[in-house]
Amino acid sequence: TKTPSPALSPATAARARVVHCTVKTDSRHRELTPPIPDAMSSKGSMVLAYSGGLDTSCILVWLKEQGYDVTAYLANIGQKEDFEEARKKALKLGAKKVFIEDVSREFVEEFIWAAIQSSALYEDCYLLGTSLTRPCIARKKVETVQREGAKYVSHSPTGKGNDQVQFELICYSLAPQMKRMPEFYNWFKGRSDLMEYAKQHGIPILVTPKNLWSMDKNLMHISYEAGILENPKNKVPPGLYTKIQDPAKAPNTPDILKIQFKKGVPVKVTSVKDGTTHQTSLELFMYLNEVAGKHGVGFLPSWRTSSPDKGPRYLPDPSSPECEFVRPCIAKSQEPAEGKVQVPVLKGQVYILDWESPLSLSNEELMSMNVQGDYELIDDTGFININSLRLKEYHCLQSKVTAR
Amino acid sequence: TKTPSPALSPATAARARVVHCTVKTDSRHRELTPPIPDAMSSKGSMVLAYSGGLDTSCILVWLKEQGYDVTAYLANIGQKEDFEEARKKALKLGAKKVFIEDVSREFVEEFIWAAIQSSALYEDCYLLGTSLTRPCIARKKVETVQREGAKYVSHSPTGKGNDQVQFELICYSLAPQMKRMPEFYNWFKGRSDLMEYAKQHGIPILVTPKNLWSMDKNLMHISYEAGILENPKNKVPPGLYTKIQDPAKAPNTPDILKIQFKKGVPVKVTSVKDGTTHQTSLELFMYLNEVAGKHGVGFLPSWRTSSPDKGPRYLPDPSSPECEFVRPCIAKSQEPAEGKVQVPVLKGQVYILDWESPLSLSNEELMSMNVQGDYELIDDTGFININSLRLKEYHCLQSKVTAR
Amino acid sequence: TKTPSPALSPATAARARVVHCTVKTDSRHRELTPPIPDAMSSKGSMVLAYSGGLDTSCILVWLKEQGYDVTAYLANIGQKEDFEEARKKALKLGAKKVFIEDVSREFVEEFIWAAIQSSALYEDCYLLGTSLTRPCIARKKVETVQREGAKYVSHSPTGKGNDQVQFELICYSLAPQMKRMPEFYNWFKGRSDLMEYAKQHGIPILVTPKNLWSMDKNLMHISYEAGILENPKNKVPPGLYTKIQDPAKAPNTPDILKIQFKKGVPVKVTSVKDGTTHQTSLELFMYLNEVAGKHGVGFLPSWRTSSPDKGPRYLPDPSSPECEFVRPCIAKSQEPAEGKVQVPVLKGQVYILDWESPLSLSNEELMSMNVQGDYELIDDTGFININSLRLKEYHCLQSKVTAR
Amino acid sequence: TKTPSPALSPATAARARVVHCTVKTDSRHRELTPPIPDAMSSKGSMVLAYSGGLDTSCILVWLKEQGYDVTAYLANIGQKEDFEEARKKALKLGAKKVFIEDVSREFVEEFIWAAIQSSALYEDCYLLGTSLTRPCIARKKVETVQREGAKYVSHSPTGKGNDQVQFELICYSLAPQMKRMPEFYNWFKGRSDLMEYAKQHGIPILVTPKNLWSMDKNLMHISYEAGILENPKNKVPPGLYTKIQDPAKAPNTPDILKIQFKKGVPVKVTSVKDGTTHQTSLELFMYLNEVAGKHGVGFLPSWRTSSPDKGPRYLPDPSSPECEFVRPCIAKSQEPAEGKVQVPVLKGQVYILDWESPLSLSNEELMSMNVQGDYELIDDTGFININSLRLKEYHCLQSKVTAR
Repeated sequence: TKTPSPALSPATAARARVVHCTVKTDSRHRELTPPIPDAMSSKGSMVLAYSGGLDTSCILVWLKEQGYDVTAYLANIGQKEDFEEARKKALKLGAKKVFIEDVSREFVEEFIWAAIQSSALYEDCYLLGTSLTRPCIARKKVETVQREGAKYVSHSPTGKGNDQVQFELICYSLAPQMKRMPEFYNWFKGRSDLMEYAKQHGIPILVTPKNLWSMDKNLMHISYEAGILENPKNKVPPGLYTKIQDPAKAPNTPDILKIQFKKGVPVKVTSVKDGTTHQTSLELFMYLNEVAGKHGVGFLPSWRTSSPDKGPRYLPDPSSPECEFVRPCIAKSQEPAEGKVQVPVLKGQVYILDWESPLSLSNEELMSMNVQGDYELIDDTGFININSLRLKEYHCLQSKVTAR
Repeated sequence: TKTPSPALSPATAARARVVHCTVKTDSRHRELTPPIPDAMSSKGSMVLAYSGGLDTSCILVWLKEQGYDVTAYLANIGQKEDFEEARKKALKLGAKKVFIEDVSREFVEEFIWAAIQSSALYEDCYLLGTSLTRPCIARKKVETVQREGAKYVSHSPTGKGNDQVQFELICYSLAPQMKRMPEFYNWFKGRSDLMEYAKQHGIPILVTPKNLWSMDKNLMHISYEAGILENPKNKVPPGLYTKIQDPAKAPNTPDILKIQFKKGVPVKVTSVKDGTTHQTSLELFMYLNEVAGKHGVGFLPSWRTSSPDKGPRYLPDPSSPECEFVRPCIAKSQEPAEGKVQVPVLKGQVYILDWESPLSLSNEELMSMNVQGDYELIDDTGFININSLRLKEYHCLQSKVTAR
Repeated sequence: TKTPSPALSPATAARARVVHCTVKTDSRHRELTPPIPDAMSSKGSMVLAYSGGLDTSCILVWLKEQGYDVTAYLANIGQKEDFEEARKKALKLGAKKVFIEDVSREFVEEFIWAAIQSSALYEDCYLLGTSLTRPCIARKKVETVQREGAKYVSHSPTGKGNDQVQFELICYSLAPQMKRMPEFYNWFKGRSDLMEYAKQHGIPILVTPKNLWSMDKNLMHISYEAGILENPKNKVPPGLYTKIQDPAKAPNTPDILKIQFKKGVPVKVTSVKDGTTHQTSLELFMYLNEVAGKHGVGFLPSWRTSSPDKGPRYLPDPSSPECEFVRPCIAKSQEPAEGKVQVPVLKGQVYILDWESPLSLSNEELMSMNVQGDYELIDDTGFININSLRLKEYHCLQSKVTAR
Repeated sequence: TKTPSPALSPATAARARVVHCTVKTDSRHRELTPPIPDAMSSKGSMVLAYSGGLDTSCILVWLKEQGYDVTAYLANIGQKEDFEEARKKALKLGAKKVFIEDVSREFVEEFIWAAIQSSALYEDCYLLGTSLTRPCIARKKVETVQREGAKYVSHSPTGKGNDQVQFELICYSLAPQMKRMPEFYNWFKGRSDLMEYAKQHGIPILVTPKNLWSMDKNLMHISYEAGILENPKNKVPPGLYTKIQDPAKAPNTPDILKIQFKKGVPVKVTSVKDGTTHQTSLELFMYLNEVAGKHGVGFLPSWRTSSPDKGPRYLPDPSSPECEFVRPCIAKSQEPAEGKVQVPVLKGQVYILDWESPLSLSNEELMSMNVQGDYELIDDTGFININSLRLKEYHCLQSKVTAR
């Protein structure tokens, strides 16, 4: 049984540099059924994955122009935007309906906890902060499409990342009859195209300085990539991090947290300093992230992932058969992963001060049981002799080969 | 190709709590050939793994009493003892010969580098600082036995650890005719036995306070275990660490190191601050460890390993066939792992500031090559369609099963 | 989902040559609690694994002589002995009780079916016909010990095989307080010792010719080993096989069987020739074995396993944590493994004539679905381009390395 | 060390049913450099993978019509065609050059032997008889393109198989600048299109009955697929097999072969009956296949592979980095795989009569060495005790969990 490493869960930021382009230039659309020409003005209803930003605002207007009834869908996964503003904007731009759903709790309970229970790391180092959101959001979009009886679903990936792959694989799993409509690719040729279109159609453009990199934010992490981050010879720019304190400037005294685990996930966190307690998954996870961020915990450089030597970085699909097969094992393995651990959080690190687990295989009772005779010193004679048999014979064989 | 993580190599300490007993109570002897009764006083020569401490000093005297010619063997693997003092003591206690060999360089070049090249971690977390010394020392002892024509080789493990297993498996690989002589077990029943014996035989006893834990030191790491560390409910005692600064008290400004790699191992380290340069493996490794220790880098709690749920913690034998089979692969995989990385070391952490590798798969030239057409946006349509086929059909099948 | 290969299940014999000694020379005893000196004559009751043969008959008498109340336990696992005769003999030799239990059905349902569902093969070739019986029998013995309140349990392995390892690991799992009583080892020094003892104590000795090899029989298989089979240069002796026809002499016309599967195991077998039907697991399995044997199906040479290059041949323990973890996955994976297959059995082989599975991923409906557009010829362009990216870049990198 | 299973190598046929279409409808072309408009009539030279059949004959003529100089390339990999006839036909249809290369020997020595050394099986059952030819032929085509300075290379896959994937991945590895020319897809819409085109252009059409299935032939195997074989409910048609005798009609007396191995591959085969000997790889392999075929050895039903549940059946690329990494290990593992084996071949089966290997870990000398004390009966006490520790503690833990 693998006790989950508490050091991993409070990770708040990862400065990834992945080979993605920053300007979103295409909008992908998925057709649920062959589009039936409409006698009326509408070509049918389309669920649009909408963020409130320039890209999806333009796409919203353009889709309306093309004759679709647009339903804007926006998932709140902890990215801290002004959701009400986004709703108003969507309606003003012509959306028939707007759905803004808070999926934070299920993101923590169904996806982050599962990743912690299985110690899931991509290439042994990347915490999957972006990838875990994909199936959580995608299935919500598909549910919306089905609930609203929509004919189309649209999203606007960067085109070079794995977001469209993950989104679409889940769509096709849940709604196998869906197909791509390739005629929608590359409608907008780039940022200037978008700006021009926005001006012509009265879509508000925030005057922002040119981004030097792009970010992916949610309640679990922020990842930074693209722009000047693409070249590993560039130093990490000061001021890059927004969710996490620079460890060098972090407080000189630790926060000490008592964390209680059940079935491999934290169920209660208590601050030793002020007695604050959190017991529900979402609040507890956000509190851990807050304390960790304050002390500079969670920097995770992942330049290694910029190399394409293991094939394009597409992650295993959570709705795949292989994933369904391993799930019952992971659940079983985490049953005894319970107990308490006390961790000081200080200067970018999380230490373990002490811990106990009633179901641990190493508690005192078992140890003293061992001492009283379960294990005899002499036992290693037989153990070593039997294990050395093959080594002796292998090396005798090697001598023969060498002797030739 | 996996670029070795520079953060791992400077690790200087690990506070392991492993279920070992602290008092060494038995001395194991290995017989090379059936002991031939000697007409003369000597039963033959024996190579004794000697440390200069109480246990092996008593064993040296006792073996002499039993009629053996004792050759004391002591490997310098960076544990920083007074080797000359140890030599004098061994001769004074009656050793016929004393061999003190410095194996530091080969420990770094053949064992530590190999571990870094293969990212070898025990149970994904333990740096193997003790285990890597075993084959390095054991083969030296066997060489000494063979060179000196000795009949016996003796070591004095704690009995509950894996040291005797690792030592003996290597002995039997290299000298398959060796056998255990079980009559030597448990000669001394414990520390008080040893003290009594030492007093009677004039063996110097250092008046030391009772150890609260035991340590294993070498140039790679110090591990702490046993005593009060056995119970995870005990807090880590202040003053435990001797090789590494407490991160909270570490300097507020970083040392920045430029590290150059070839074939997956560091070949040159330069301090940005003072221009100091190290280019040979041993000096370079020790310098990295010194800088890391000063900044509190290298704490590695490993309580998890105290649980025996994967069987007794015996490590794979480096002289096993399976190990010989994977070695050529690792060498091949590390050929392109070369380049430069710049790392600030600060407050217990090692960051990556920038890096470059002429053989990296992600350099600018390749990126721009990609941009110019190797990868078309439209490519993901086919990629997704083909990859989704099995998911669609699997979920169709699941629907059938559910429908029953 | 892996459809179980019907060719594996009817296997009736395996001519293994494993490095075991043929003469059973030791009897192992397990002590449940520290033996309490008995005021009366008895040292307490002991469950003896009894076969009716010379070895265990002598041990039974000897144990009685030593002052134990002996309960003979004999499991019927399809080895076709005269169980009533064995019972009478045990009672006559002084057993207090005799338990003869038919465990055939649970051997098929819990062990053979599980092996088929998981396609379990030792080293990819050995059908595990002996090893699968061990946990089935061992847990019954432990149940008997506990039900009868016995103090001891005894078995008499060959000493060089894995039988004592498997038996004892299961004992200790189920009754962790048990310990070995080493004083019972090697009581009888060999076959002549046994014969002498038997003569003195009036134990019947069958006058049998010296065995040229030894056999392990049960309802699943017979394995042959030891004696002249130890040397692979010896040809397989004519007349070795008793359960299976020589394929060269097998009938010239096939039996054709219709086998129906559910959850990865056969649930109904019908003979096309005479319409015979079997629907319960034990009868069905024995019928398959009978037909297979008649046609010479099931020869499985396993000389390879005589080489000790993977360590002594101890098999994973079915009561281990790792085994418990994978079990739910295997169950899940076998849910859709259902359908019908028609197999001719002829001249040592089982062919597949035709098959169908309602839950297969390859039925006609799905195929025609594919034809109608799920898969476009053009799709492979993107699939190939994306998959070739890393190959192109790897080979560019290789060119650089070569160019140096 | 895994001794290669001699039973696998003589396999001569596999009756696969894979979901492929039988009519080749598209011709893929690869452009080496951007096509430079030619002042003269020719658009440049193109290497065409040519078989002599209807498809590639039509494509040859059509390419010539389009203005290309066509070089026909035909690899002889043991498929037993009339190569001279094919050459004449190509020249008559307008090929500028025709290359017919015999790659049989390198197919055996570099690909089949490598597969045997590594016991390579696709999904544990399929012998890879088709896939192994792909890299062998593809690299020859690329060599031809480079030697002849051709601008284009063309092949005509079925479109639904993995042939184009394997061919192109190897092309791009060896010549990364190549690109697809999508305008050539689907030129011929189907067989009637081809027939019509052939008639108009005087391309000879053999009047053949409609094929009920398709075949892939080479010196290693014939695989059958498509047509009536697609539906597993159809019985295997009588007369399907051409390279292998029906086991029921095979001779009643065996051929006995003595096979000598070195480094994991056969180096000499002797017939016991008539003393015939073969010592070179190609002749030896073909002789083994001939004897095996005569006795009905090599039927390999692979219906299982018709299910797409592991993703489309694309095989690992032999020019991939992972393949390069494992190669040195396999070579090392096969060094001691040498010796002699005597096998009767009879009624669809290959038995092992006897064998010997000077480098085996199980020869008599080693066995007797064991007997003389390397392994003590008592050794298993320690071995079992140490291995049972974790089981005992795990089951104690389970009791606690259950007790709640």
